[in-house]
Amino acid sequence: MKNFNDFIGLFTDHYEFTMAQGYLLDGRKNSTACHDYFFRKNPFNSGYTVFAGLYDLLEMISNYNFNSDSIDHLRKIGFNDEFLDYLKDFSFKGSIIAPQEGEIVFSNEPIVRVEGSIIETQLMETILLNTLNFQSLIATKASRIRKSAGNRIVIDFGLRRAQGLSGIHASKAAVIGGVNSTSNVYSAFAFGFDSSGTQSHSWIQSYPDELTAFRKYAKAFPKNCVLLADTYNTLNSGIPNAITVAKEMEKNGEKLWGVRLDSGDLAYLSKKSRAMLDEANLNYVKIVASNQLNEYLIKSLLEQGAPIDVFGVGTNLITGQDDAALDGVYKLNTIDEHPSLKLSDDLEKVTLPGAKKIYRYYNGSGKFYADGILLAEEENIQKIIHPFHSQKSVEVGQLKKENLITKVMDKGDIKIKNYSVKEISEYVRERLELLPDEHKRFENPHIYKVGISEKLFDLRNKLMRNYY
Amino acid sequence: MKNFNDFIGLFTDHYEFTMAQGYLLDGRKNSTACHDYFFRKNPFNSGYTVFAGLYDLLEMISNYNFNSDSIDHLRKIGFNDEFLDYLKDFSFKGSIIAPQEGEIVFSNEPIVRVEGSIIETQLMETILLNTLNFQSLIATKASRIRKSAGNRIVIDFGLRRAQGLSGIHASKAAVIGGVNSTSNVYSAFAFGFDSSGTQSHSWIQSYPDELTAFRKYAKAFPKNCVLLADTYNTLNSGIPNAITVAKEMEKNGEKLWGVRLDSGDLAYLSKKSRAMLDEANLNYVKIVASNQLNEYLIKSLLEQGAPIDVFGVGTNLITGQDDAALDGVYKLNTIDEHPSLKLSDDLEKVTLPGAKKIYRYYNGSGKFYADGILLAEEENIQKIIHPFHSQKSVEVGQLKKENLITKVMDKGDIKIKNYSVKEISEYVRERLELLPDEHKRFENPHIYKVGISEKLFDLRNKLMRNYY
Repeated sequence: MKNFNDFIGLFTDHYEFTMAQGYLLDGRKNSTACHDYFFRKNPFNSGYTVFAGLYDLLEMISNYNFNSDSIDHLRKIGFNDEFLDYLKDFSFKGSIIAPQEGEIVFSNEPIVRVEGSIIETQLMETILLNTLNFQSLIATKASRIRKSAGNRIVIDFGLRRAQGLSGIHASKAAVIGGVNSTSNVYSAFAFGFDSSGTQSHSWIQSYPDELTAFRKYAKAFPKNCVLLADTYNTLNSGIPNAITVAKEMEKNGEKLWGVRLDSGDLAYLSKKSRAMLDEANLNYVKIVASNQLNEYLIKSLLEQGAPIDVFGVGTNLITGQDDAALDGVYKLNTIDEHPSLKLSDDLEKVTLPGAKKIYRYYNGSGKFYADGILLAEEENIQKIIHPFHSQKSVEVGQLKKENLITKVMDKGDIKIKNYSVKEISEYVRERLELLPDEHKRFENPHIYKVGISEKLFDLRNKLMRNYY
Repeated sequence: MKNFNDFIGLFTDHYEFTMAQGYLLDGRKNSTACHDYFFRKNPFNSGYTVFAGLYDLLEMISNYNFNSDSIDHLRKIGFNDEFLDYLKDFSFKGSIIAPQEGEIVFSNEPIVRVEGSIIETQLMETILLNTLNFQSLIATKASRIRKSAGNRIVIDFGLRRAQGLSGIHASKAAVIGGVNSTSNVYSAFAFGFDSSGTQSHSWIQSYPDELTAFRKYAKAFPKNCVLLADTYNTLNSGIPNAITVAKEMEKNGEKLWGVRLDSGDLAYLSKKSRAMLDEANLNYVKIVASNQLNEYLIKSLLEQGAPIDVFGVGTNLITGQDDAALDGVYKLNTIDEHPSLKLSDDLEKVTLPGAKKIYRYYNGSGKFYADGILLAEEENIQKIIHPFHSQKSVEVGQLKKENLITKVMDKGDIKIKNYSVKEISEYVRERLELLPDEHKRFENPHIYKVGISEKLFDLRNKLMRNYY
């Protein structure tokens, strides 16, 4: 496989190049533009989205370049020499305004703003969408699984079902969203967090019998030893053999950490296993459960009183089932300092013109109350109004507020700290605590208020009248 | 981002290392093993699966190694020096038996066999599952979209919604499965096929009016010029302006290639647009449609008589919605030359012991009739039987057959040609023609017969009796 960093400039849609060349040859090298990133729907019918992928994106943008092989390829497929000369020396020199990574954000908010020349901002479209859409999707999924699991340990087991190399960043996003650890050694190494894992069915099968396999494993890894109990028969063989080994370990001054259930009815098996372990005075031995889990199944298991201490979650977490993509888009809001919009037969898809900021307003209990989208130059406003029904408004003039998006890249330079995954994950946890519960429930979450300023409403209406 | 190839050894599940170290320290360095790769369910309720990702996998396995930073990381997280010494010089020296890339395969067939030492075969598990599960998923999805689109052009537009770096291989798998081209320049460059693309709404918005934007684009790219018609109003503005530009191009001896519709009711808009274009004697101008398409929507559009010539397909193709993962697994079938199986309370999940081969049998019309799973040493058998109901059998003794899986890696060396994506895609097309139609329909496809030999049936029963 090629080294991705060497060819990163090509990791984009073909049309970004046709447009970029078109702008250049039309003498618009110095035209300026501002684009918004937003998504139209929170994934998983969630009441919120966890914003993730920012630092990876900024690093990719910092490194965005075209080596000579990339240039040769673009020449071969028809791009012209003047444009290729431009690309040869390309580096992004624009600015990016975004929330802190791990922020709780909502649909239809222009959360990221990209400013610069029309060419450079256009060329960043695909890489920005690819990175933010995916990591935010997985971080949001992970936050839901974290919620359903309460304080229990959750481990990402998904690499084998990840969409190919998506695994590199997926496990990171899962940890950002609230998962404790991962089976993915690469991601843990590259981004600095913990990986873990014990044994699979093949280990058990590779020995003449299950008891021997358990003993061998306990001898090799007496610390954090978890024994997989379902290779032959969980209750008749796996748990009894695990109990035998746990008792042998006690004689050596060691403690079996846990048993893992990976098939069958996890509620039934975990209760029976717990009872058998307790009966043998092994109440310290934990029960790890895995097998096609998601936030709904975990919630159901716990509602049934399943005594599960650790959840291993694979496919559903690592691919963001059932919503394999966040539908984020990148829309031009300003061209050469003139506000611009895209119309649509569907009024709700008309975009918001002009460079904008976002204020987050707090209610009297110090929790998130509403977000307001203002024109970038606006400061204090008295009310925010519904984006499409101006008669609906919310008074915000007296509320405590904060500026949600700040400059994270300035003239091509990264302006923020590279927070550790643990720090970002902690920020997610803190911010989710500030989001009222009704927005966090799984079933029909209450829709969080996102309004716009009157000036923005009027600007959009004025521009729309030019076309309708 | 780190160079993936340098750290490829870490792209695996933590438990592969704990098991590998366990085997080594237990003195089992020379134990031999054979594992099967199979999946339990064709994705998308499809009647078949397109096998993809093989050559990428073989290359990754060839390059699988541990550099000093990887070794240091593994030491830091607790692995021991003897094991790390083993990993330092690791390279896979086993064998892999698999179908040709692009083969049509079915659920519960052990399509790939991995033979070697228990340590090296264990270490290949995650990378094999990650690669084959994903590329086969996307190639299968693409083949369904190809079927629904008939001979029309289909282009992958998905990179912005791909799961991060999955985009590197996803577009390749899409082309293998039958898509004509992609917007993804990186994938097209890395794997040698065509990319294409024209302009987005931002291009249109960046000019004072739509007609100017169209004229500028047609001037810059008179060849293969496609104009995006829905930025303001498709029928009142986009198509009339495109017609104006098409007529101007005719005066220069050029031809507008197409118009693109990216929102609204595509059936209605394509018919109206076609009529307007034809009315202007522009019946050569093609209609390109995009916006959340999948195989069902394309089928529906064509059933409604929508005159669409080209489909751009994004999210649903590139993420394999609604089945974001193929559920492939990797199971031990032989240890130290003894056949092995994994039991399960669910009889259908009991694995098939021993090294196996697959014969594909043809019916009298020269089409695929049934696949038989035999023990590797078996040659001619008279019948194959249902894997779980021995009274159900099919006579195959007189049928033309072929050996579906052959050695693709021998003692660590790749033994097959690196077929071009075009060649693999052509093979998929040819093989799908040999699959009877009833297995290719979208609604409740007829289940393709996959049986096992009597010897294999008996071996499994004998081994099961040791446990039940």
